[in-house]
Amino acid sequence: MVEDAEQQLIARYFRPLARHPGALGLADDAAVLTPPEGCDLVLKADAIIAGVHFFPDDPADAVGRKALRVNLSDLAAKGAKPIGFLLSLALPTGAADAWLAAFTEGLGADAEHYGCPLLGGDTDSTPGPITVSIAAVGTVPRGGMVRRSGAQPGDAVLVSGTIGDAALGLGLRRDPQWAGRCGLEPRQRDHLLARYLVPEPRLALGEPLRLHASAAMDISDGLVGDLAKLGRASAVSAEIDVERVPLSDAAKVLVGADPIASERALTGGDDYEILCTIAPGKLDAFRAAALRAGVPVTAIGRIVSGRAAPQFRDRHGRALAFETTSFSHF
Amino acid sequence: MVEDAEQQLIARYFRPLARHPGALGLADDAAVLTPPEGCDLVLKADAIIAGVHFFPDDPADAVGRKALRVNLSDLAAKGAKPIGFLLSLALPTGAADAWLAAFTEGLGADAEHYGCPLLGGDTDSTPGPITVSIAAVGTVPRGGMVRRSGAQPGDAVLVSGTIGDAALGLGLRRDPQWAGRCGLEPRQRDHLLARYLVPEPRLALGEPLRLHASAAMDISDGLVGDLAKLGRASAVSAEIDVERVPLSDAAKVLVGADPIASERALTGGDDYEILCTIAPGKLDAFRAAALRAGVPVTAIGRIVSGRAAPQFRDRHGRALAFETTSFSHF
Repeated sequence: MVEDAEQQLIARYFRPLARHPGALGLADDAAVLTPPEGCDLVLKADAIIAGVHFFPDDPADAVGRKALRVNLSDLAAKGAKPIGFLLSLALPTGAADAWLAAFTEGLGADAEHYGCPLLGGDTDSTPGPITVSIAAVGTVPRGGMVRRSGAQPGDAVLVSGTIGDAALGLGLRRDPQWAGRCGLEPRQRDHLLARYLVPEPRLALGEPLRLHASAAMDISDGLVGDLAKLGRASAVSAEIDVERVPLSDAAKVLVGADPIASERALTGGDDYEILCTIAPGKLDAFRAAALRAGVPVTAIGRIVSGRAAPQFRDRHGRALAFETTSFSHF
Repeated sequence: MVEDAEQQLIARYFRPLARHPGALGLADDAAVLTPPEGCDLVLKADAIIAGVHFFPDDPADAVGRKALRVNLSDLAAKGAKPIGFLLSLALPTGAADAWLAAFTEGLGADAEHYGCPLLGGDTDSTPGPITVSIAAVGTVPRGGMVRRSGAQPGDAVLVSGTIGDAALGLGLRRDPQWAGRCGLEPRQRDHLLARYLVPEPRLALGEPLRLHASAAMDISDGLVGDLAKLGRASAVSAEIDVERVPLSDAAKVLVGADPIASERALTGGDDYEILCTIAPGKLDAFRAAALRAGVPVTAIGRIVSGRAAPQFRDRHGRALAFETTSFSHF
């Protein structure tokens, strides 16, 4: 018997990604998971939309990778290990087979790499843009999820990797001449563009965070706004030395050449780096564990008491004022 | 400190729905669930899109209800009890506050009614239509999920409720004059329209299915196509007496008056009724349990061996041929 077009599409493009036994080969209504003994489940849903979170002409495999990675980044920040994900994919009517083939290739490669197979989901046609909604499931030892709400005055504030690359990369996508005006080398420009195109979820930092962090989150809406969220959740404030915020060489070129670049790096979002707080007594152990995990981490300031917005101070100790503190879709 | 617009929107409209303690008041990156002892988790993601799965002018509270219910229907068919859900909501730029207020009111009322609170998710703006992606989580006793793949030759084929109402209601939305041409009373027309607008997830049938069904699924893409899927998953065929397929009074009027109505009822989809197979020795017990659960069930045929497409026979024993066997978005 001939299967319908949707069934054929599932069989061709999605079944190969559904390697978890509980996905039942995508031939059932739902997936089934036997939760690992002694574990909690960590659940996160995040969507990316063409023209909003990625450019319609971004390579389809990069879109597949980004859609999964923005969710894995949250699992990493919570100290969780991925189990699998559900996908709701809305495709414009008449979307090319080639797009879907490349999308599922990128998505599948990351699902394999990060040990996070497809569990189930649905595909629909849409009169609107490509919309990729993913719900990711991870595990932590019971009670072990790292929250936003545990930061204490005196804790060090750290970030992973470098900050602002993706926001600056987005700026370069919107204004390709910006690179030339600022004297950015092609290699540096490509670094920033790549950081926007496909983030790097810091899953290797999950266990160090779980063992040592008092609070953590991933930076998706900009360091300034996300630190404010962490502060609100923990009922604390923070003081940050802007000079200590780690920048890539490429970001430093832009920040040195254009006054707008610094604010954009701190508030622009799409970093998908980890923001965390560590009690002073655990700082050495966290640094050592992060080093073993191969993830660079940098202390940028400290948690202080109070409910004020976190202060970002320049080299002269002056608090910076930002035009927009956080990326918001509304 | 002033929260940004997205945070305000979450606080106003979504936090009241996030009654599960693991939702952490939507103030963290992810939700955390401690799985009930001895249970498996059942996971399902399904999206609804304006202009595809509902009409852009449908009442917003009905859209909220439908988005959750199409997922709960799958949990019901798998014998699962809902725990909670994740929501990815994409809203057109400048969507009215009133729409969101009504949407979350409908969604929240159902979340409460079905014991399925909001766990987390995200909201985004989109240049496209309203897109509501929900991932629902339920539990079954370990190993107890009802699958599509367990049907055996000799099993009875049953459906819950009545079939075709929603597909005929959709027909009436597209062609409002159809009701008058067929002599449908306003009350009957309203019944069919309501069945399309907001489905009824058969969660009360979950336990009877778990205890007695050899296979089950929910009917979302039409009885004919969905039975074919169940047959493929179980490597069996089926023989259905079309005369026994339960129709509402309203559907009977249309089927009696217009030759197209019967095929539309059997293949049109959006029923969100349960299709299941029951071994002969368990049939009485299942019927009794369904009666106690308050869900009408009707035997419409039986499973037979073979891999052929299920046969739908009319009162003269002739196999019907359908133009399209199943609703497909592609």
